[in-house]
Amino acid sequence: MIELHPIMAIGEVRPGDDLAGLLAPALAGFVCDGDDILVVTQKIVSKAEGRFVDLGAVTPGPQALELAAVTHKDPRLVELVLAESDAVVRAVPNVLITRHRSGHVVANAGIDRSNLGPGDPERVLLLPIDCDASAARLRAALGALMSSAPRIVISDSFGRPWRNGVINVALGASGLPALIDRRGEIDRDGRALEVTQVALGDLAASAAGLLMGEGAEGVPAVLIRGLSAPDEPNTASALVRPVEQDLFR
Amino acid sequence: MIELHPIMAIGEVRPGDDLAGLLAPALAGFVCDGDDILVVTQKIVSKAEGRFVDLGAVTPGPQALELAAVTHKDPRLVELVLAESDAVVRAVPNVLITRHRSGHVVANAGIDRSNLGPGDPERVLLLPIDCDASAARLRAALGALMSSAPRIVISDSFGRPWRNGVINVALGASGLPALIDRRGEIDRDGRALEVTQVALGDLAASAAGLLMGEGAEGVPAVLIRGLSAPDEPNTASALVRPVEQDLFR
Repeated sequence: MIELHPIMAIGEVRPGDDLAGLLAPALAGFVCDGDDILVVTQKIVSKAEGRFVDLGAVTPGPQALELAAVTHKDPRLVELVLAESDAVVRAVPNVLITRHRSGHVVANAGIDRSNLGPGDPERVLLLPIDCDASAARLRAALGALMSSAPRIVISDSFGRPWRNGVINVALGASGLPALIDRRGEIDRDGRALEVTQVALGDLAASAAGLLMGEGAEGVPAVLIRGLSAPDEPNTASALVRPVEQDLFR
Repeated sequence: MIELHPIMAIGEVRPGDDLAGLLAPALAGFVCDGDDILVVTQKIVSKAEGRFVDLGAVTPGPQALELAAVTHKDPRLVELVLAESDAVVRAVPNVLITRHRSGHVVANAGIDRSNLGPGDPERVLLLPIDCDASAARLRAALGALMSSAPRIVISDSFGRPWRNGVINVALGASGLPALIDRRGEIDRDGRALEVTQVALGDLAASAAGLLMGEGAEGVPAVLIRGLSAPDEPNTASALVRPVEQDLFR
């Protein structure tokens, strides 16, 4: 059996906050073991890292103005999206999808305007600088505060081509195989497996998404217990399909 | 807390088998309530519905021969893929993605060659005729055998654009909102939510995917307990983005 526990009551996260210090007391009721996975929202990581930007301080350049006209979006937001991205994947009315510099393909470069806490309504929140690095730091910091640190997934909710509604994916991971590679294994009848790579980080993120919701609940983290995974850790960057293998360029 | 329980020991499923009759004893240890979600693999539903095809009995037509040359796939398999699909989305070497007649966009029309049980190695397994209808029938049949029937999700593992590895998605659903529509709700700061539709069916499928794996384990079903969801059921067809809204036509 796998258990999913909502981790609450860490309060509003502010720039400079020590996330591990906030999360450790909320995890105190659990005797974590090395198989446990703590999924945290990208939002609290970004807030702790102070990734807020005041739109009033942004001056859109020519490309942002052009794309803003196409997408009907705020040119200042588009300027930030472009600064955070390596390539524009799709720009049509109300839609701006880019390849974030981390490689993840996401709407609006993952920039967020909701549930940012009290403050300037023109404030937006960028993704963390490097989610895999943030996950590794959080895992190390929790390890210093707890007898055994959980594996870490940093999650965000993404839309998808062809399917309605968002799901949760892994933008950062530490201590678990975000991508399980089973090439070479065989099925129960001795035939080669057709499915050889499993996006464990994304599965864990979506499982946590059952509790995180998107609304007023504010569940910033979920502890997944009872899942055994191969001890071959890799990062969420393993989930990014290289551009040259992208079928929809 | 949410619990994910693997439901095992239902044996090899054969054409004509009564799935509810196989699953009910395995669920007997749980006092299900109406919030519980039973996620079952597409594979056991297809097997029970006898959706096996012997490739030796398939004669590829001209379009299948042409696409087989492009994709380096068995022309007989390609013939079946085309018969199951409304449109070809992408055909390049080793890749054939189509819009299945259910609307779901999937590689090889979801046709499966692994873990089919003993038998002809040329045997393949098509998706169920109508996964939402299969889910509704399974829910009704379980309701006749148990004091309270769980909600049902029928799940398969899908690849995705831009991301490595498969995740699990919902192809059929009954009794739960496969797509939660939160348009009009506000965030904790009173601002309109940016994310307004959540793919609950896909999240539940991926949570179950943590236990189902893809290899020799053979976990055909997972019971999700403790998740409260709005009482506004819709089917997995709600997860299919209409062709005219598809950004990547």
